[in-house]
Amino acid sequence: MQRDIPMNRLDDMQGTQRASDVIHLNNAGASLMPRRVLDTVLEHLQLEARIGAYEAAELVHARIEKVYASIARLLNAHPDEIAVVENATRAWDMAFYALPLKRGDVVLTSTTEYAGNYIPYLQLQQARGIQVRIIPNDERGQVSVCALREMLKDPRVRLISLPLIASNGGPVQPVGAIGPIARAAGVWFLLDACQAVGHLPVDVKKIGCHMLSATSRKYLRGPRGMGFLYIEEGLCRQLEPPFLDLHAARLETAERYCIRPDARRFENWECNVAAKLGMGAAIDHALEIGIGAIWRRILGLSDALREGLARVPGVRVHDAGLVKSGIVTFTVDGFVAARVQQALALHDRRINVSTTTCRSTMLDMQQRGLTELVRASVHACNTEHEIDTVLKAIESLAKGKTHAGMSIR
Amino acid sequence: MQRDIPMNRLDDMQGTQRASDVIHLNNAGASLMPRRVLDTVLEHLQLEARIGAYEAAELVHARIEKVYASIARLLNAHPDEIAVVENATRAWDMAFYALPLKRGDVVLTSTTEYAGNYIPYLQLQQARGIQVRIIPNDERGQVSVCALREMLKDPRVRLISLPLIASNGGPVQPVGAIGPIARAAGVWFLLDACQAVGHLPVDVKKIGCHMLSATSRKYLRGPRGMGFLYIEEGLCRQLEPPFLDLHAARLETAERYCIRPDARRFENWECNVAAKLGMGAAIDHALEIGIGAIWRRILGLSDALREGLARVPGVRVHDAGLVKSGIVTFTVDGFVAARVQQALALHDRRINVSTTTCRSTMLDMQQRGLTELVRASVHACNTEHEIDTVLKAIESLAKGKTHAGMSIR
Repeated sequence: MQRDIPMNRLDDMQGTQRASDVIHLNNAGASLMPRRVLDTVLEHLQLEARIGAYEAAELVHARIEKVYASIARLLNAHPDEIAVVENATRAWDMAFYALPLKRGDVVLTSTTEYAGNYIPYLQLQQARGIQVRIIPNDERGQVSVCALREMLKDPRVRLISLPLIASNGGPVQPVGAIGPIARAAGVWFLLDACQAVGHLPVDVKKIGCHMLSATSRKYLRGPRGMGFLYIEEGLCRQLEPPFLDLHAARLETAERYCIRPDARRFENWECNVAAKLGMGAAIDHALEIGIGAIWRRILGLSDALREGLARVPGVRVHDAGLVKSGIVTFTVDGFVAARVQQALALHDRRINVSTTTCRSTMLDMQQRGLTELVRASVHACNTEHEIDTVLKAIESLAKGKTHAGMSIR
Repeated sequence: MQRDIPMNRLDDMQGTQRASDVIHLNNAGASLMPRRVLDTVLEHLQLEARIGAYEAAELVHARIEKVYASIARLLNAHPDEIAVVENATRAWDMAFYALPLKRGDVVLTSTTEYAGNYIPYLQLQQARGIQVRIIPNDERGQVSVCALREMLKDPRVRLISLPLIASNGGPVQPVGAIGPIARAAGVWFLLDACQAVGHLPVDVKKIGCHMLSATSRKYLRGPRGMGFLYIEEGLCRQLEPPFLDLHAARLETAERYCIRPDARRFENWECNVAAKLGMGAAIDHALEIGIGAIWRRILGLSDALREGLARVPGVRVHDAGLVKSGIVTFTVDGFVAARVQQALALHDRRINVSTTTCRSTMLDMQQRGLTELVRASVHACNTEHEIDTVLKAIESLAKGKTHAGMSIR
């Protein structure tokens, strides 16, 4: 049994929040970097400007390699199964577009799929004649494992691809049940863990996914413009990346090239080294605290926020699923989501929340009859006091009070 | 007639070098960022850590838009023709892999092509049955425009794709002559300007190229992990990007998506905003100084270096072409290139040069019977004194002296 976050660590984590000018509940957008992560990035940039960027990379070569080890440890993978790429979108792209999907092949996804991934399914539907099918939800609002089992009887199914946690919250999908049945059916399983890494324990071996994409800037609390791809060793060698360069492959003769064997075949030579080191520092920071402890604290804070919101007249919480995440979504009667975001961000409040619309999770939102939501995404570094402050602000907003003359912070 | 760089500007430019710990002649790898560029990057990262990264991006929205205007001004293009992407490799990939090249189509390239681009030609040769042909050089070592004209008589030629300046120096290709004949033949012209932007004037209208890829970190003196793609408006709308997401396209229904009309269809939603602003600052800095003046100063300094090197017994300069660039390549008898690089980098010298091998420019190197070169790449911010110091160091190296006991700086 893992312990909770020790007081001194918690104090260290919350230091970032105290040093910030805001109550940050937009961790599902991008988190506030811990001081140590920010310093790692700044120091490397300064080194680059002082001795040259290639020369700086040479100097920190061992630390760059350690980033792969940190990611591997985070996911329970091997460093050779990791590619560090520009962001989660490009990580996902490099895996998805590399799959040899052909006319008639079926891709299964969840209602919670991000439109940014769903568009590529439609693109290959047009370009290659693949089919996309949606796995129905069970009564708790998560992917129905029974329905999935039925759908897998169709031998044309080649891929299951879905997000572990959707960008508009919703259920933590039962991926530990999906992985084994995907493997039993001989179907690839691509997991979008963009909102999940750093948020809750993600063990690729336990899940049984073949590929996983993730970002630095969200729950890992790393810098922007950095992400990674896990790809299972056996599968990696079978897939030719959609793009190649001189890092992914080498030229043997004017007629022949050879692709490197490890997952770095999905990278390219150029890299924002400062951001890569920053992501490594963020992962090490999270691992030191313990992902299990972070997850329990997120659950505690987000439950408190949900329960508090549910008590506010005029506020409705919309999160579905048996296991919910740190992403709390709600509506306030009489206010469009953007107005709530704006009102909370005002100078005397400085509360960062975001909005999420049909545009980014169309299938789920339409199925639930929703058009937009306010999204308050909680991290372990948020404090109980912040949750109280936010609840009071939303309560006063829901009561129709204006912010004028109020200083609730 | 453009003037030279005024003394106060030159002094400002050289400030970076003076503040550095090195004599930096690896500008073709990555330049030293000017103070103002570094500060732009650092300040935005600090803002992100203080108020949230999405919130920071919102705050500097107008400055982000201005980056497109700056790139457009640099290239004489329209901001809607610019995509800002992770690096020059991915910029080039997004253009090249988007082209609807099919079996039998012919791609023409130069002997100076970078292996990182040549591998993708071979990949599509295997995957789609295209053919790659090399345009011969003329007697001066640059692409033979006459030979190109002959090759364009073959109606199967669909694309001319080559680097304006090769990574191992060599000629500045006569792109102003190539563009019009490509257009006359109805053939696409993709220009790799990775080493060229910030180095010499690059005007896409004068050149007549349809697509151009470039990086921030080399002669533009911007941060790593940032680049851009120019794509002519008329062509842009005809090309479906190889990858799509929710920034490049939007989901209209569960069955239909719509790709945005401008060049940002080649971008994705996530971005290292700090690096993007840094690249903008670097471009503005270069434009203020004047690219023409930068180019003339680079020519002056690199000519001085070449002439000096040619006078050193045992040193051979290998740059070909009518118009040479700031990239100076040479060999030192009795020393492998890596040994020269290492000796110059030693603590009492701290001279940054790099090496370039057959691995990255195989066709050119094999044709010239070379296996590796020392690459000293000069920028306008280098000083005459630095060139002298480097020449003395190479002279002493060529004489077989050890570095022990010598302090030449």
